[in-house]
Amino acid sequence: MISFSLFGAGRMGIVHAQNIDANPRATLKYVVDIDGGAASRLAGKYRATATDLETALSDPSIDAVLIASATVTHADIIKASVRGNKAIFCEKPLDLDLRVAEECVDLVQQADIPFALGFNRRFDRNFQAIHQAITEGQVGDVENVIITSRDPSPPPVEYIRQSGGIYRDMMIHDFDMARWLLGEEPIEVYANGSCLVDSAIGLAGDVDTAAVVLKTESGKLCQITNSRRAVYGYDQRVEVFGSNGMVRTENELHDLVTHFGRDGVVSAKPVDFFIQRYEQAYRRELEDFVSAVLNNQPPLVTAVDGYRALLLADAAAESDRSGKAVRL
Amino acid sequence: MISFSLFGAGRMGIVHAQNIDANPRATLKYVVDIDGGAASRLAGKYRATATDLETALSDPSIDAVLIASATVTHADIIKASVRGNKAIFCEKPLDLDLRVAEECVDLVQQADIPFALGFNRRFDRNFQAIHQAITEGQVGDVENVIITSRDPSPPPVEYIRQSGGIYRDMMIHDFDMARWLLGEEPIEVYANGSCLVDSAIGLAGDVDTAAVVLKTESGKLCQITNSRRAVYGYDQRVEVFGSNGMVRTENELHDLVTHFGRDGVVSAKPVDFFIQRYEQAYRRELEDFVSAVLNNQPPLVTAVDGYRALLLADAAAESDRSGKAVRL
Amino acid sequence: MISFSLFGAGRMGIVHAQNIDANPRATLKYVVDIDGGAASRLAGKYRATATDLETALSDPSIDAVLIASATVTHADIIKASVRGNKAIFCEKPLDLDLRVAEECVDLVQQADIPFALGFNRRFDRNFQAIHQAITEGQVGDVENVIITSRDPSPPPVEYIRQSGGIYRDMMIHDFDMARWLLGEEPIEVYANGSCLVDSAIGLAGDVDTAAVVLKTESGKLCQITNSRRAVYGYDQRVEVFGSNGMVRTENELHDLVTHFGRDGVVSAKPVDFFIQRYEQAYRRELEDFVSAVLNNQPPLVTAVDGYRALLLADAAAESDRSGKAVRL
Amino acid sequence: MISFSLFGAGRMGIVHAQNIDANPRATLKYVVDIDGGAASRLAGKYRATATDLETALSDPSIDAVLIASATVTHADIIKASVRGNKAIFCEKPLDLDLRVAEECVDLVQQADIPFALGFNRRFDRNFQAIHQAITEGQVGDVENVIITSRDPSPPPVEYIRQSGGIYRDMMIHDFDMARWLLGEEPIEVYANGSCLVDSAIGLAGDVDTAAVVLKTESGKLCQITNSRRAVYGYDQRVEVFGSNGMVRTENELHDLVTHFGRDGVVSAKPVDFFIQRYEQAYRRELEDFVSAVLNNQPPLVTAVDGYRALLLADAAAESDRSGKAVRL
Repeated sequence: MISFSLFGAGRMGIVHAQNIDANPRATLKYVVDIDGGAASRLAGKYRATATDLETALSDPSIDAVLIASATVTHADIIKASVRGNKAIFCEKPLDLDLRVAEECVDLVQQADIPFALGFNRRFDRNFQAIHQAITEGQVGDVENVIITSRDPSPPPVEYIRQSGGIYRDMMIHDFDMARWLLGEEPIEVYANGSCLVDSAIGLAGDVDTAAVVLKTESGKLCQITNSRRAVYGYDQRVEVFGSNGMVRTENELHDLVTHFGRDGVVSAKPVDFFIQRYEQAYRRELEDFVSAVLNNQPPLVTAVDGYRALLLADAAAESDRSGKAVRL
Repeated sequence: MISFSLFGAGRMGIVHAQNIDANPRATLKYVVDIDGGAASRLAGKYRATATDLETALSDPSIDAVLIASATVTHADIIKASVRGNKAIFCEKPLDLDLRVAEECVDLVQQADIPFALGFNRRFDRNFQAIHQAITEGQVGDVENVIITSRDPSPPPVEYIRQSGGIYRDMMIHDFDMARWLLGEEPIEVYANGSCLVDSAIGLAGDVDTAAVVLKTESGKLCQITNSRRAVYGYDQRVEVFGSNGMVRTENELHDLVTHFGRDGVVSAKPVDFFIQRYEQAYRRELEDFVSAVLNNQPPLVTAVDGYRALLLADAAAESDRSGKAVRL
Repeated sequence: MISFSLFGAGRMGIVHAQNIDANPRATLKYVVDIDGGAASRLAGKYRATATDLETALSDPSIDAVLIASATVTHADIIKASVRGNKAIFCEKPLDLDLRVAEECVDLVQQADIPFALGFNRRFDRNFQAIHQAITEGQVGDVENVIITSRDPSPPPVEYIRQSGGIYRDMMIHDFDMARWLLGEEPIEVYANGSCLVDSAIGLAGDVDTAAVVLKTESGKLCQITNSRRAVYGYDQRVEVFGSNGMVRTENELHDLVTHFGRDGVVSAKPVDFFIQRYEQAYRRELEDFVSAVLNNQPPLVTAVDGYRALLLADAAAESDRSGKAVRL
Repeated sequence: MISFSLFGAGRMGIVHAQNIDANPRATLKYVVDIDGGAASRLAGKYRATATDLETALSDPSIDAVLIASATVTHADIIKASVRGNKAIFCEKPLDLDLRVAEECVDLVQQADIPFALGFNRRFDRNFQAIHQAITEGQVGDVENVIITSRDPSPPPVEYIRQSGGIYRDMMIHDFDMARWLLGEEPIEVYANGSCLVDSAIGLAGDVDTAAVVLKTESGKLCQITNSRRAVYGYDQRVEVFGSNGMVRTENELHDLVTHFGRDGVVSAKPVDFFIQRYEQAYRRELEDFVSAVLNNQPPLVTAVDGYRALLLADAAAESDRSGKAVRL
């Protein structure tokens, strides 16, 4: 049984609290949030206690921390948790600054404590089936990966301003997906973005629509598309092409019903956003972390994965500025 | 908060125990099973107590019973529960004997206690979307309903022998679906069955493959197909046709990935069986019952629905024997 | 090279004239129609001559006749063609009277002349793929066939009055499909029809919606659904279920484009009617007949097939009247 | 009625000869090919005459030329046809040299003769439906176009050597598609290619796998993927994303049948290659040209379109060499 301190009682904190509670091998003991009321409400719902960082990390009965607080707090909580010798599950990203992220990775590796990063998509049943198809040889040698990620609607511009930009905030998930499916590190990154959805995003110095090309040492190519707005719902698809064929996944839909009418054949839209699409993935992700801690085995997503994805995000941002492909 | 006594610690009892435990408005207090070990194991998992029928029904803190025991026990537990004035959720069927079923319905109605019957399919997201499309007028006047139900593999012949036959045991779900979607009672039933899957089923006096036609007063037609074996998984589909178009649902699949290869385009199979397919439906079904009890409102599926479906099953069995349509 | 006399310059005559003209091994010489103007126009389009039955059958350069005239004329033209020793392609049905149909079959068999009946659906690429899957063993032992046929809109009631009724006029195609896919003769027929689409059809003594169950000697079951109106287009689907799995076909669509929008995911409707759906099938059907004549091999659909389908249609009509399954 | 001289009796010449013959408003008079035997065989099949360029262009009864000969001959035949004042249908590309292509465009425009370029994909029913959805506003403002083109297998390396490279030979179709769907000229081109399929292609100085990003003045982005080999058949898909949603098309399949079996759900593969996929598109393309000539209206694809696509191909080739985006 793993006893958790949860940092962050916002949207993702709520998801993780629920999953910890429902997991037969995990229990939620503390909730920490700068907003004490939110911490208390969430803690109360699951018979946990709202507390501060000190207590949450010094209590020897705590085995693990789950970091779902604001990005700027991640590195500090990681460092404190390492000092407290707690296993760590951290939402993406490690940090928006690559050097800080690297520092975290080093600390975690030196302390040799279990660390999982929240690239939840790797736990989606569809992306897992795609990864399995690759490892089982159904695709042959992977030659081309195409990743589509579109959010239903853009976040508030205040969020955009402190997000690190689309490549670090949103496409970072796709960079991780690319690395996982390519099975090889990208060594070349080209990015080109536009502000087409919301001009306020452009004024904030960011883009809302972006296209990226990655290339690995052996020449595999990956294309990524991002948009901050898709009126038909959350759009998360992957296509992997290789010497033996192609695998691809469609989006999860609200239901599997189709209506055949005078004006066409209408079926259900993709589910709304990540909370719905990755509901099961979040549960599996936690399960993987709990197993990693209990069985002393590596989690599916490590601190290094968090660092590598950020490296690609930085390269993409640079490429978008310079108009040249960036070599790593 | 509703406190439950659960009867039956077998496959369905396990499903319901888990859902009661996970439901924030329900709690499991007692588990009763002829197999005391099974009752204890299941009770232990959810901090409940294994006990006998007396205790389970006489404890005044118990609000409701959930009957998931063997079919032959249903009527007696229903009667005892009515005497104990407990709200009742009963797995299908009420009983295999129509008169006994009618007696149960009468008792329940006279006592005016909340009663829900476990026709779980009405809570499937897809069948709900179909029903909603009908009520919203997307189909127009319903003219034709086509229901396909195929189990992945036949049950043991011992089960068949005491099952009441395919019409009462398996197709009864489809009769309920037909009534729900037709929006009108069938008045004519034609059934024709064959033993094509397993000759032992034929020796036991039953069929394993069956085709049924229902007709309502206003002339709506419904066709039902059953098979006890489908090598590709659990096959549960519905198509509703009417003056404004058609709605239909596909099966739930293991995942949404497709592989394009030399030998064809391969996608995932339907999920294995009812436990997987209706996992969410069982949760919603319980939720509906809990709401019915707490808010004093009728549940979606009533005792009368259980009786009506059995009436159709009996008529189908008679039609299969006689080769004639049976009028109700 | 096969030289044709074409009887009938209506909708089907036009289709066949075009296909004869486009077929490199066939040529259209004469067109005969009670409406001389129509015959002339059609003949003129393909450098053929409008003429009368005498000439069309006595010209020794004529190898074959194609009968696409009104149903009532079929038997007489067949008989005259047999006397003229011409190969015969005849649109369905042979005749609405079973005895007349039998007479035609006998004549044709005694004269041993090539005879093909126009059950065009057997030449559809999808139904051919289904048939091939069966013969290659992908379905295993066929246990259940489900056939859906819905026309986009009902014909004028004048047509209905002389059509022989839905079973002989419309469902006869499905009876042929059933025999072809079951691979065994049905021995039991149950039919139940309603008038739901157009009350004028009911006043004319016919139904517009019908459900049929067929059973073969070995117990295979087939279900057929017909409607005279489907607002979403021509609906022609088949599903074959057996010990190794299921094959089914979707309808041909206008295109393969899908629009993902705010209100749902919309794709194209099925093509409008038989002229569009079976455009290619009509060409292949003619090609099969031409090959049969030139290579002295049996065509895919024979006079006996026409007779057998009519036998089932008659049995269905009788069952609908009596409410009992009819044994053949 | 348009009378044609056809240049080229190879694969594409055969397709066009057949379509000219089948078109009621067109007739094939001459076939010219360096291989006199091929010219004679093709001419003979359609009652045309094999001849030389002089005759084919000087005969005053000839209205139009169809150029389906080797790429190196295109410019000369265009020039001679302009001198002969014949309407011109020319297979892609105009020429591999941009200056020569420009010269052809100028000549054709000065002479003001009807000229259509063979970007056949614009006549595919699916791509037409996508274009129509855009023009009807179903996509809103186009923001992102994703084009996938994969050939079933690579051509012989001798072909590769004189092809001008993947961008000019293969992706040129996608550049035209991009321009057509973006509705705006790309001003920035990034390309990155690899040799992953056949090392002989790399030795010949070309790539067989390529990823391209285009950007227009207003910031619309387009991503193109090419591969010279797809084991599952010809893969030609397009996805267009915008402010009101997304439209996309699937490939044309051999049939619409699906087999549900023990090992998965298997459906038919995409059709083999362009001859099958674009069979109907080639007919429509010719029809469009014939209408353009007869009605004195612009054809859907002009000489300028041919030039513009080549411009993008050249830019892509340069970008692939330099690793930088090329601005136009």
